Amino acid sequence: MSSQDVQRPVCIIGLGLIGGSLLRDLAATKHPVFGYNHSTSGARIAVKQGFDVTDDLPAILRRAEETNALIVIATPMDAVASVLDAIREHAPSCGFTDVVSVKAEIRQLVIERDMHPRYVGGHPMAGTSKSGWENSQTGLFHRAAWVITYDYAAECDARGERIPLEWENVFADVVRMTQMVHAEAVPVRVANHDAAVARISHLPHVLAETLAVVGDNGGILAQSLAAGSFKDGTRVAGTRPDLVRQMCETNATALVTVLDEALELLKDARDSLATEEPSIAELADAGYRARTRIEARSGARKESVSPVKISSRPVLRLHPGAPNWVAQLRQTESLGGRIEIF
Amino acid sequence: MSSQDVQRPVCIIGLGLIGGSLLRDLAATKHPVFGYNHSTSGARIAVKQGFDVTDDLPAILRRAEETNALIVIATPMDAVASVLDAIREHAPSCGFTDVVSVKAEIRQLVIERDMHPRYVGGHPMAGTSKSGWENSQTGLFHRAAWVITYDYAAECDARGERIPLEWENVFADVVRMTQMVHAEAVPVRVANHDAAVARISHLPHVLAETLAVVGDNGGILAQSLAAGSFKDGTRVAGTRPDLVRQMCETNATALVTVLDEALELLKDARDSLATEEPSIAELADAGYRARTRIEARSGARKESVSPVKISSRPVLRLHPGAPNWVAQLRQTESLGGRIEIF
Repeated sequence: MSSQDVQRPVCIIGLGLIGGSLLRDLAATKHPVFGYNHSTSGARIAVKQGFDVTDDLPAILRRAEETNALIVIATPMDAVASVLDAIREHAPSCGFTDVVSVKAEIRQLVIERDMHPRYVGGHPMAGTSKSGWENSQTGLFHRAAWVITYDYAAECDARGERIPLEWENVFADVVRMTQMVHAEAVPVRVANHDAAVARISHLPHVLAETLAVVGDNGGILAQSLAAGSFKDGTRVAGTRPDLVRQMCETNATALVTVLDEALELLKDARDSLATEEPSIAELADAGYRARTRIEARSGARKESVSPVKISSRPVLRLHPGAPNWVAQLRQTESLGGRIEIF
Repeated sequence: MSSQDVQRPVCIIGLGLIGGSLLRDLAATKHPVFGYNHSTSGARIAVKQGFDVTDDLPAILRRAEETNALIVIATPMDAVASVLDAIREHAPSCGFTDVVSVKAEIRQLVIERDMHPRYVGGHPMAGTSKSGWENSQTGLFHRAAWVITYDYAAECDARGERIPLEWENVFADVVRMTQMVHAEAVPVRVANHDAAVARISHLPHVLAETLAVVGDNGGILAQSLAAGSFKDGTRVAGTRPDLVRQMCETNATALVTVLDEALELLKDARDSLATEEPSIAELADAGYRARTRIEARSGARKESVSPVKISSRPVLRLHPGAPNWVAQLRQTESLGGRIEIF
């Protein structure tokens, strides 16, 4: 275990697309990693493939406690409360993180159980419209932003309190874990995260579903003519509806705000198309400019003469616990930047 | 020239993404093909690459007339009227087609000039967000639907009139041309085409632009976190705004209809998310079902045990001019099917 690695074993609860891909990536580095799958047959398949996996949640959490593992909650949102209860019972001293796409509701569940001094939230901005262990893969997180929340540290800092060393260690290990799977750790506070993903993750699902329904309303001829623009625009409508519901419904307030923005733009475009001289100039120009700007900034690899791909996210190398390190996190967050632990 | 090939040379007016790709594909089959590019430097580049291209429109149209070529109008919408005038002047007996994405407005321009007995409309459902000769490529139309309109024949048929042989020959040659570039010829009347593309091509552009603007409103953090779902959902917002405007503004009536459908779905979802118990169940379920249905029907290659890919569009083999052939076109249209000429 090098100083760049997570300084403890990793225990993953829930082996769907994200949890399964994380398990595969960490196992590929030979880092000690074990996991839990609630499906007995699913767990059996993973075991046959050579992974250290079980369907016994209390047993795996006791093992996490004995080995002082970092626990990663990778279940759907509706299972998180019961997993937290199980961690409190069977792994009362383990640090833990999660990979769920909405952060406020989980933080609330964690605080209610008084578990926040050992919790660091996470959310990898990676995925496909597929789900389940059978779709998990190595390399899923390569160069993806992996949001890491630090509200607990920010609040300690605001009160002028020393951040507990235990929390700093969990934070550092979560960052190291993202580095081990070649993701880019982006520090973001919970409310800012949930507002941002409403725009760039949850709204895309709602628009994709709307487009799918309106296209389908055109019947068999429209279906036959649907090509690239329609297929790209509806791809995420292929996501399991229960997963979409959990994301959107637990982030409803932020999503309603951005839906109102979208509705206003669409209503204006509609009205401007319904005139004697139909025009969509305003939206077409604004959309093109916005897309161009995002393309340049959203962590796309910059083209360079060197074969080494360079992230477009500014990087800050920091040491948790060093003077002003929480202020550095805030600054990095404001730039959409990434951090590295040294 | 086999009986499966276009029975005359092809003259392409406008060598952007679509016209350029068509020129490349036909040239690759050794079929006689020549083209016009309004940009002198663009034409020079194509000539250097070995293509039979000029920037002299009257000259190329006179050549089309002398060789009885099939003319393909592949300019943006706003240049079509002047190209039609030039064809009337310099190529008064050539049959012609077009590849523009809205069909009613072009048909109107053609009828105004009394050129409809030698016009067959077309629209390949292929493209990328890139434009221009420099992005044209061979194979762009492989397995794409290529809409071919037949309103003139349908109207003759409805009046009990014999369809002129000249028109039947143009129709057959346009179908053969699509076959030569491995597209699938889908017969559709103008109004049905324009209604369908409003749903599956123009609405995707409007939604992509809306998503791009709302995402961009989130500033640098949202831009940094934007990942797959956002990038897929905004891809076509990278299309040049003047091209989007020409598509959407010339099809405004049909687009307003589908925008109203989209607005109603989004408004309902928004209201249902703004309640005490936020829900997006209805839209998430409907969108998933619609996407699944379209995926199955939209000409995606069916998986088969054979390595030969099979189109999911039903095929009708027909002979233009045979008894009831216009009724067969109507039937194929109602199934979103494709035709082959034998």
